[in-house]
Amino acid sequence: MSGGLKVGVLGGGQLGRMLALAGAPLGASVRCYDEAADACAGPVAGLEAGAWTDAGRLEAFARGVDVVTYEFENVPVESVRVVARHAPVWPPIEALRIGQDRLEEKTLFGRLGIGVPTFAAVSSRGELDDGLRRTGLPAVLKTRRGGYDGKGQAVIRGAADVDGAWAAVGAGRVPLIVEAMVPFERELSVVAARGRDGAVACYPLTQNEHRGGILRQSVAPAAGLTPALQEAGESIARRIMGELGYVGVLAVELFEVGGVLLANEIAPRVHNSGHWTMDAGCVSQFEQHLRAVAGLGLGETRPRGVAGMVNLIGAAPALAELTAWPWARVHLYGKPARAGRKLGHVNVLAADEAELAERIRPIRAAADAAAR
Amino acid sequence: MSGGLKVGVLGGGQLGRMLALAGAPLGASVRCYDEAADACAGPVAGLEAGAWTDAGRLEAFARGVDVVTYEFENVPVESVRVVARHAPVWPPIEALRIGQDRLEEKTLFGRLGIGVPTFAAVSSRGELDDGLRRTGLPAVLKTRRGGYDGKGQAVIRGAADVDGAWAAVGAGRVPLIVEAMVPFERELSVVAARGRDGAVACYPLTQNEHRGGILRQSVAPAAGLTPALQEAGESIARRIMGELGYVGVLAVELFEVGGVLLANEIAPRVHNSGHWTMDAGCVSQFEQHLRAVAGLGLGETRPRGVAGMVNLIGAAPALAELTAWPWARVHLYGKPARAGRKLGHVNVLAADEAELAERIRPIRAAADAAAR
Repeated sequence: MSGGLKVGVLGGGQLGRMLALAGAPLGASVRCYDEAADACAGPVAGLEAGAWTDAGRLEAFARGVDVVTYEFENVPVESVRVVARHAPVWPPIEALRIGQDRLEEKTLFGRLGIGVPTFAAVSSRGELDDGLRRTGLPAVLKTRRGGYDGKGQAVIRGAADVDGAWAAVGAGRVPLIVEAMVPFERELSVVAARGRDGAVACYPLTQNEHRGGILRQSVAPAAGLTPALQEAGESIARRIMGELGYVGVLAVELFEVGGVLLANEIAPRVHNSGHWTMDAGCVSQFEQHLRAVAGLGLGETRPRGVAGMVNLIGAAPALAELTAWPWARVHLYGKPARAGRKLGHVNVLAADEAELAERIRPIRAAADAAAR
Repeated sequence: MSGGLKVGVLGGGQLGRMLALAGAPLGASVRCYDEAADACAGPVAGLEAGAWTDAGRLEAFARGVDVVTYEFENVPVESVRVVARHAPVWPPIEALRIGQDRLEEKTLFGRLGIGVPTFAAVSSRGELDDGLRRTGLPAVLKTRRGGYDGKGQAVIRGAADVDGAWAAVGAGRVPLIVEAMVPFERELSVVAARGRDGAVACYPLTQNEHRGGILRQSVAPAAGLTPALQEAGESIARRIMGELGYVGVLAVELFEVGGVLLANEIAPRVHNSGHWTMDAGCVSQFEQHLRAVAGLGLGETRPRGVAGMVNLIGAAPALAELTAWPWARVHLYGKPARAGRKLGHVNVLAADEAELAERIRPIRAAADAAAR
């Protein structure tokens, strides 16, 4: 629609890029704000380059749009507060604030009766020893803030690891949390959306595989997903979103342990484990997020078959190689190659789990070969 | 991919817009050339505004891209020849030339053994009378060139209509064709793609409903589609594409008459009756076209269920109304409302024909109500 909705997105990475592409068919124009003038959303969205501390620029950005959201969970909360004086911001700032702090997240989970690995706040070496007595071993010592993709973490398997872990995460110079390292069967996530009217729509639980702290592959619905497990995952998302008055897409990373779900962390934004939704015949998480923050109706979340996603990390196979598989749905982000960097992903849709495994295998092999 | 494929598109309407949106995930940047500086592809693609007769500007446009295609079948062939001196052009210019002339089209069909309604060239009132003796009545008198969406046509049901029809289409001032008006059971189309390597991929035959000469609604696969009918449609597309050394997406409009397919016309480009492919879990016709002209592998063409499309003509219902149906996949083109103008479309995917009919009904009603 000419004169359609103007959406401001804080952050201009691939998530902003995919939000912009999802907005165009709804007549929504997306403008991103990022510190980097070459942020990869730029070629498909409007891009305002400015510092998170530049209040004047943030204010002008907010005044130029109808609603603001974020695609980067480390946007400083103070910057969002500046923006919120000039435009509605969704999801609520409180969700961003909590999502930035592992201790706040896990405290929220506990308060809402959501299962969570045993954890303790750590601000001194003495508190670490106390915490480890509660969590038992193995445990993971993490910075409370700022870590992602496995950074800012150290595993403690035995007493001999404690000193090294303590040093590795900054020796108490930043607030820490120690968590029991759960012997989980698998990693799952629930990607859910809540509209302005409180309506909730959840995608099927997604099964995720990380390596080196980075998501490599997702499959949805998770293998053997039962209605009970789906309901358990949805209940977790509903409780969090209800508590926060949430609007938008929320992802909750989960561990499955003996059939029970424990919450690991939230991402108050569209999420890598929801990328399969782009090609599965349902409404994508990107469109869903825009619908929610714009006050529109939520769309269907059920894939037409079994969906999978393979991340392209560090280097991407040639397009000609990927498109040789007719089922490979390629999404490149327009970023220069760099070790460990998410450059794109490939979605796959199949009739059943066996066909999906067969279709994913060569793509995963190509992705791994390119990344080496 | 930064430094990815640069595609030039002649024409900057909604088809160019959707090509641009489909290109981004492949790392392809799309630049359109259109006479109108406010062409609706502009906000999502690069847009060069220039006349079709401006050879210098066309040459500069061609030199700035890797490959050129078109989304508008009335691009002057001479303009494309200018472009072709500086960049590869797909589909071949010959397909464009033939597609612009109803007589050439039908002559091609006849030469390839493709069923076609009886037709005759008309350049004088005497030739019209002769032609009508061959076609019988009812018949349709059409301009050979330039007509679209039902314009430039006049129906002749009886002898009394001949004078009026002759006057209505210009009284011989432009070349004409008279065609038998076939009592078809239904209108179908086949949307097919051919790669640079000669590989062909066809979507299932689509069933189309026109009103006032404008496509209103499509359903795919066509109701009760048999393998034999699909094969008949694919064979038509294959013969045409093979003959022309075609590369890209081609649509062939068909009539089904007593189980036999007659070809009506070709569109050497992505086509309105293929819009359902955007949300059906297969590769969309837009991505498919880009893959073909870029020399990449063709993607899957089988929908995951039964797909439908409703055009939004003249005026569009409010987004809030459309998104209230969770299955409505809305595609707006960013064009100001105007009677008879295609402003967008809504795609629907369903498990079976009955569910599709149920899901389409309220959307069609809303589209019709808005258009009134």
